[in-house]
Amino acid sequence: MTERFMIPRSVEWNDTHITILNQQKLPEETEYLELKEIEDVWDAISTLKVRGAPAIGMTAAYGLALAAQRYEASSMAEFKQQLHKDINYLASSRPTAVNLFWALNRLASSIGDAISVNEAKTMLVHEAIRIQVEDEDVCRRIGEHALSLFKDGDRILTICNAGSLATARYGTALAPFYLAKEKGVHLQVFASETRPVLQGARLTTWELMQAGVDVTLITDNMAAQTIYAKNISAVIVGADRIAANGDTANKIGTFGLALLAQSFGIPFYVAAPLSTIDLETKTGRDIPIEERNPEEVTHIAGKRIAPEGVEVYNPAFDVTPHELITAIITENGIIGENYEAELPALFEKSEQVG
Amino acid sequence: MTERFMIPRSVEWNDTHITILNQQKLPEETEYLELKEIEDVWDAISTLKVRGAPAIGMTAAYGLALAAQRYEASSMAEFKQQLHKDINYLASSRPTAVNLFWALNRLASSIGDAISVNEAKTMLVHEAIRIQVEDEDVCRRIGEHALSLFKDGDRILTICNAGSLATARYGTALAPFYLAKEKGVHLQVFASETRPVLQGARLTTWELMQAGVDVTLITDNMAAQTIYAKNISAVIVGADRIAANGDTANKIGTFGLALLAQSFGIPFYVAAPLSTIDLETKTGRDIPIEERNPEEVTHIAGKRIAPEGVEVYNPAFDVTPHELITAIITENGIIGENYEAELPALFEKSEQVG
Repeated sequence: MTERFMIPRSVEWNDTHITILNQQKLPEETEYLELKEIEDVWDAISTLKVRGAPAIGMTAAYGLALAAQRYEASSMAEFKQQLHKDINYLASSRPTAVNLFWALNRLASSIGDAISVNEAKTMLVHEAIRIQVEDEDVCRRIGEHALSLFKDGDRILTICNAGSLATARYGTALAPFYLAKEKGVHLQVFASETRPVLQGARLTTWELMQAGVDVTLITDNMAAQTIYAKNISAVIVGADRIAANGDTANKIGTFGLALLAQSFGIPFYVAAPLSTIDLETKTGRDIPIEERNPEEVTHIAGKRIAPEGVEVYNPAFDVTPHELITAIITENGIIGENYEAELPALFEKSEQVG
Repeated sequence: MTERFMIPRSVEWNDTHITILNQQKLPEETEYLELKEIEDVWDAISTLKVRGAPAIGMTAAYGLALAAQRYEASSMAEFKQQLHKDINYLASSRPTAVNLFWALNRLASSIGDAISVNEAKTMLVHEAIRIQVEDEDVCRRIGEHALSLFKDGDRILTICNAGSLATARYGTALAPFYLAKEKGVHLQVFASETRPVLQGARLTTWELMQAGVDVTLITDNMAAQTIYAKNISAVIVGADRIAANGDTANKIGTFGLALLAQSFGIPFYVAAPLSTIDLETKTGRDIPIEERNPEEVTHIAGKRIAPEGVEVYNPAFDVTPHELITAIITENGIIGENYEAELPALFEKSEQVG
């Protein structure tokens, strides 16, 4: 394993191909795949070899840029026609992934000023790289803000995988642990395995171990005992969507951890990029809870663990009310009081910076 | 499936053999085993084909009675010598199971008045049956008391398997659900899968489904969302040990559920026989938390789900402080205020009854 994978990267651009880490094989096997054809890219997204909203977006963007290099178009009109055919194709690889469409559309918009096919080809590659660079920068800034809330020796509990594997690098909730490692600050991480899909057991432990971060695995129902017996200092989680009042949708189990943090009087932090904040969604009550396939609960690794025909409740995520959230950590800073007023202000800050 | 298994029994005496339900094969296969030799009984206990303290005790008692029927002793002295050899043999089948020794010793004591070998043989069978009958009676009384706390339409959350499979019949925390079914009271049960060993997913759902009880399976980290979205009325759990002040050791995850119950303002009940109350243990702090094999967490059904070499914290149980327990439900009644005074009083009540 080379130095570049000290903090594992899920996606890398290599001019003639895209290298991805096959997350389906983790943690049993560390397999890197070279995606050379657009069909490989479609397959990697569709079969969840790459997961995490930013990582999916980046992979699709690189996939489109890669395919475009081979277009033999004699005019920009012809080039754009080919491009839109491939955009539609890649968009069908995971129809529920909003970030996928966002990235593909961003690439399409980027060639508006191109005066030649060759220039357009270069612009697409640059724009795809820019998406990754920007995401890495966002994650690093989230990590720096988050790290300011921790001190040497802290023991911190997290759930699911809001990590480097899901983003360009560093992740969101896991970013402070990598930065702490860089700075020689010792943090002890406890990773909740995160049933039913076990992202904590399979991915979070794996990526933190690659970087030499001190991580201990627990089952989800050990959280209370761990907070108590291991003297946990704080809980930090990622977010799927943050409503205008600060209510936060995230992986199932997050709400329970927030309630436990409240019971034990320890802080509960949400780390997420501004792109996760949806001011159009007024409160958590406006977020419908998706229920997923019962087989995720009744089977593990293909083996049945519950009686045939058993009734199952399998909500994919839950909503943590803003009152339980000590602070929301974004690339533009930390807010923790009046979310309704402070969330829009974060975006203004963003525009000033931009 | 015959009527007698509507509420599944883990152990049954059949004169020439003992019939046990092979809990290792559940829920994939419903396999009943006939134990004809003392070696079969030793193996069934040792390989966890039978589990749950009362069920283990009963199986060992029947195993000893069965073996004794074949002794060709010409005197009581010779008979007792053979008996003690077999007691030592059966006691070695699961050296940490306190109930195993208790049951075997109770059988040994039961033949003190025997004047013939034949009488002693009969007395052993009767005493073993008495152990099972008494346990069934205890469980039924716990169930009746517990049911008095619920009303038609209630939705109740439980963890692990404090059920019929672990006892003579009915179980402890699950007993009110069977009695409700008998009485036509509808209760909706939510069973937490109970990682790492999945007793909730494998056993609780299975046994309740056999009896036609309305049961829904969730993963452990869905508890908060389930209490909130499904409007859970109460949480009920079993107990491994109850200290003199009411602090209760039970399967890992119980403490977290008690804290969630407090957060949501719903009652949290412990259902357990008097034999679980240990007045010699002053508080929960005097109960050491056993840590078990990390492989229980890193592997499911023989398949690795976490990176090799990952650090694991695997406490087998946790201790719920008495302040979080709304009531303790025993065969002699329900207590719920000053446990320190009320727990000893329950035993006095027991002596009056006896």
